[in-house]
Amino acid sequence: MNEFVKSFVPGGPVMSPDELETAIRAVGAERYHDKHEFHKLLHGGKLNKGQVSAWALNRYVYQEAIPRKDAAFMSRVHDRELRREWIHRIHDHDGKVPLEEEGGLERWLILTDGLGLDRDYVTSMEGALPATRYACEAYVYFVREQPLVVAAASSLTELFAPSIHRERIAGMLERYDFINDPEMEYGKRRLNQAPRDATFALEFVKKYAKSRYIQEACVNAVRFKCNVLWAQLDALHLAYVHGMIPPGAYRPEEV
Amino acid sequence: MNEFVKSFVPGGPVMSPDELETAIRAVGAERYHDKHEFHKLLHGGKLNKGQVSAWALNRYVYQEAIPRKDAAFMSRVHDRELRREWIHRIHDHDGKVPLEEEGGLERWLILTDGLGLDRDYVTSMEGALPATRYACEAYVYFVREQPLVVAAASSLTELFAPSIHRERIAGMLERYDFINDPEMEYGKRRLNQAPRDATFALEFVKKYAKSRYIQEACVNAVRFKCNVLWAQLDALHLAYVHGMIPPGAYRPEEV
Repeated sequence: MNEFVKSFVPGGPVMSPDELETAIRAVGAERYHDKHEFHKLLHGGKLNKGQVSAWALNRYVYQEAIPRKDAAFMSRVHDRELRREWIHRIHDHDGKVPLEEEGGLERWLILTDGLGLDRDYVTSMEGALPATRYACEAYVYFVREQPLVVAAASSLTELFAPSIHRERIAGMLERYDFINDPEMEYGKRRLNQAPRDATFALEFVKKYAKSRYIQEACVNAVRFKCNVLWAQLDALHLAYVHGMIPPGAYRPEEV
Repeated sequence: MNEFVKSFVPGGPVMSPDELETAIRAVGAERYHDKHEFHKLLHGGKLNKGQVSAWALNRYVYQEAIPRKDAAFMSRVHDRELRREWIHRIHDHDGKVPLEEEGGLERWLILTDGLGLDRDYVTSMEGALPATRYACEAYVYFVREQPLVVAAASSLTELFAPSIHRERIAGMLERYDFINDPEMEYGKRRLNQAPRDATFALEFVKKYAKSRYIQEACVNAVRFKCNVLWAQLDALHLAYVHGMIPPGAYRPEEV
């Protein structure tokens, strides 16, 4: 365990903004989902097409929750400037009408299309693992209910996202012949979007998390969010690596 | 009472979409806030500048709740197309960065500026009546918690809004020498925005409110929303016509 994390004992002194940032970044080293076994199999080219499809189809549930959690956040913000800043996240995922930009969800569906999954089946989320849905919905509820600065902190896994996207794009294109360039467009776009969002949210958290109590809650929010991501890979691993697919969930051989 | 409303007994047969529209429109005739005594005083030029200021300052609380209730609505919508349609409502109120459009809240603040109210005082909402804040927050919670079609129905007071804006603009410009053209910009813009939004929401409600139970809930949602508006004028009337201003609320002579 990182030395700083070890020293991060509840009830300690108020952290400086930079110490808070260090504590938040340490959570990534501790438990970001790039350390999960399923992630290693996925990026290392060790999965078959059905397993990659299961991942993409379940991950759609997470993608679909993101604009809703951002709207839930905005529904609690009284500061117009902050809402005006935050709203681009919804557009980033949903796109805009008239379509200046298709949006992240559309790009994710291009990946599931490429894997041969039916769009209506994917967007219905019927084949997704129940554990995936609970984890994603827990994120929406967390953002709706926690103090605003803590809710904002839960988005800070974006600090760790660019490296995973970079690795995923390279690894999957190289190692899976059923994955091509257009299907990796989602990750490529996030390489620019995630750092912008993470920088803004990190500054917000550093500015407003002033008491030790709230600072700890912010660090724990990043842990919570890492757990949301980790739980999704756990569920995928049991179902599609160990083969314990629950009733009603996507079965690769049947689609 | 309108004949149709009289015949609208709970537990009757499923309404056709047009019957549902008639029932919804009848709510406006029954209890839209253009029938409130305070409204008549306001539009009839019977209030002094302090009373108009109290109205504008309290009404800011309502304006401020609108983009949050729209975000609350979006946080519950799984249909990307619907979110993409709905999001313009937030932009209509908040404006956009970079500023292509200042937005409705800014236009409302131009009115309160014109009345000589301090912007920080207005946006802090400290001088607003507690009853105003409860009513506006009840609207946000209603939209967050009710079935989606019922939540959408609660926006349908917009069907009745253009006539009130038209009357307000003409009446207030003519009858108050402390109100000028720029201050009425909010209402002028809503003359175009409200019908667009109302048409979309009405079609949505007519399409998805299929059972009698949900249809009644939709009609009651419009009643609920009318009550939210009415309760605000009740609170203003007691405080600023009868002079029973609660502790901490805006007192015209002191600002």
